[in-house]
Amino acid sequence: MNDTFLKACRGEDVDYIPVWLMRQAGRYLPEYQAVRGQVDFLTLCKTPELAAKVTLQPVDILGVDAAILFSDILIPVEAMGVHLEFSEKKGPILGEPVRTKSAVEKLIVPDVEDSMPFVLETIKILRKELEKKVPLIGFSGAPFTLATYMIEGGSSKNFLNTKKMMFQNSGLFNYLMKKLTKTVIAYLSGQIIAGAQVVQIFDSWAGILAPDDYKAFELPYVKKIVSSLKKLHPDTPVIYFVNDCAGVLKDAKKSGADVIGIDWRIDMKDAAKKLGKKVVVQGNLDPCALFLPKEKIEEKVQEILKKAEPAKGHIFNLGHGILPETPVENAIVMVEAVHKYGKKS
Amino acid sequence: MNDTFLKACRGEDVDYIPVWLMRQAGRYLPEYQAVRGQVDFLTLCKTPELAAKVTLQPVDILGVDAAILFSDILIPVEAMGVHLEFSEKKGPILGEPVRTKSAVEKLIVPDVEDSMPFVLETIKILRKELEKKVPLIGFSGAPFTLATYMIEGGSSKNFLNTKKMMFQNSGLFNYLMKKLTKTVIAYLSGQIIAGAQVVQIFDSWAGILAPDDYKAFELPYVKKIVSSLKKLHPDTPVIYFVNDCAGVLKDAKKSGADVIGIDWRIDMKDAAKKLGKKVVVQGNLDPCALFLPKEKIEEKVQEILKKAEPAKGHIFNLGHGILPETPVENAIVMVEAVHKYGKKS
Repeated sequence: MNDTFLKACRGEDVDYIPVWLMRQAGRYLPEYQAVRGQVDFLTLCKTPELAAKVTLQPVDILGVDAAILFSDILIPVEAMGVHLEFSEKKGPILGEPVRTKSAVEKLIVPDVEDSMPFVLETIKILRKELEKKVPLIGFSGAPFTLATYMIEGGSSKNFLNTKKMMFQNSGLFNYLMKKLTKTVIAYLSGQIIAGAQVVQIFDSWAGILAPDDYKAFELPYVKKIVSSLKKLHPDTPVIYFVNDCAGVLKDAKKSGADVIGIDWRIDMKDAAKKLGKKVVVQGNLDPCALFLPKEKIEEKVQEILKKAEPAKGHIFNLGHGILPETPVENAIVMVEAVHKYGKKS
Repeated sequence: MNDTFLKACRGEDVDYIPVWLMRQAGRYLPEYQAVRGQVDFLTLCKTPELAAKVTLQPVDILGVDAAILFSDILIPVEAMGVHLEFSEKKGPILGEPVRTKSAVEKLIVPDVEDSMPFVLETIKILRKELEKKVPLIGFSGAPFTLATYMIEGGSSKNFLNTKKMMFQNSGLFNYLMKKLTKTVIAYLSGQIIAGAQVVQIFDSWAGILAPDDYKAFELPYVKKIVSSLKKLHPDTPVIYFVNDCAGVLKDAKKSGADVIGIDWRIDMKDAAKKLGKKVVVQGNLDPCALFLPKEKIEEKVQEILKKAEPAKGHIFNLGHGILPETPVENAIVMVEAVHKYGKKS
């Protein structure tokens, strides 16, 4: 097996910088669209054979150094008892928003095997299929990110309901966060037991918080998740992706994660400097840069590789999920450029 | 006249930290809603008596230290020849998106007196009305921010069309930016001649750019605007507000602006440190923090005031526009807390 990615997660010496792409199993791939054309999105997430199939597609097509479980961050939210559906236009739509004490009380901390067996089954299929290929990443949304969807009832512009609860009823907010934290720990631990070799915590909305609020209302829960996972599975690397991280990166570094994933709105040089020699950095090409001419994509890759050199280690990635409109050949150019210019001599 | 705000813009000693709020003339005020109930949004912007009326409302109601012209950042975009309308739900909707050479060629650099006389008239009325009160701020969108609306045809999620033009046809993009830059210079200069005592450049979307792209595709134009204004009107302070600034703040500092406005996603302490003794800082309370209990609002105000102390100077503001749902009494609590705890002994 190609273990370059695993080594990089641990900060060990590697022959070249490994690369994968957030949302690498997704709509930009015609092969994904062919599968997705047969079933709706949630059914795809919940059908192990199909979820495994689309997970494997980018490994062969792009030549990336890791596979990531195909699923959705809201799967555990549904398992906690919130009705979930996906609209083609609006994205996720959740049932009755969780904004009251009784609504939070009703939420369950799910038993992973009972309520999300399809995720574990998908992982088991994938580990067999990936045996001689690349490692498998499991994942979960971070508690604050999951809380926003629950409280807003879907996506949001200002996240006013979330912050209202946080600011006006912090006791209730923290009660919700504790339930989410327990769920995320059980969920990621279940994925590791089923075979996930690395896990990534996606904090898509951490960046909407003022740094002091991030420190008070999200960081302690992420720390708790990482430390619990480290107790249960000391050898499994944890990646913490923080979107719009520039203002909170020096705090996110304290999460205990082995790798910090960063978005593209911070310069890699600044990020590497802030992270120092404690954690590996993952990122951070602007997903829109994949619309550049090929030679320019190669230039951007080289710039980021160079800027990340002072870090403890580097895993190349986009700064956010690959866009559905992306030309597949440009994603391949990026992966090949990382492998070419990221060689260690 | 209360010249505390003007002094603070220039980095001079003040008796207390001045404060105003972005979007302080707006929907959270019942008095604004009463005026707005009679006319549509664009008519309000284009009717000097009414625009002046709503500009004045927060000065008396909140007791802020500056008034800001009531208008919309897209007014000069319309004057350049792009059809503009506002939808209650979707926000601004622009005519045919500007994505081709011929579309950019068609854009005119407007004569401000001919095409936007209502703005100049509003300013003249306001200067009379504000004579014994507070200074008047004029404003414009920054060229990149205006370009995004033109290229996307409205608001956007990923700004893919903007970045596509920037990345795939940088010559065309720069041609558009040059026209916008000329327009912004003429527009702000016209406002200053009409009576605006300070101008603010709103860069609402600068923060979606990777720092290297910000340096290549936006900063040179903002520099050009500031240096041109400084030649024409050396005594008029320029504020440059950069939304989601954490990743580009040290570059934005090089714009030449007297004051840099920051959003709430960066800690004021970090921002003050990055800005050093060269520029005054403006900001940066999370607009959602106005939903806190009153004593907590006072605490947050005190924290920000303290963190901004090492800066060359501080003008208190929100980190973004005040939200329509905000209780007016909480905005007043904020203003009073700034005046109380921002007193210089």
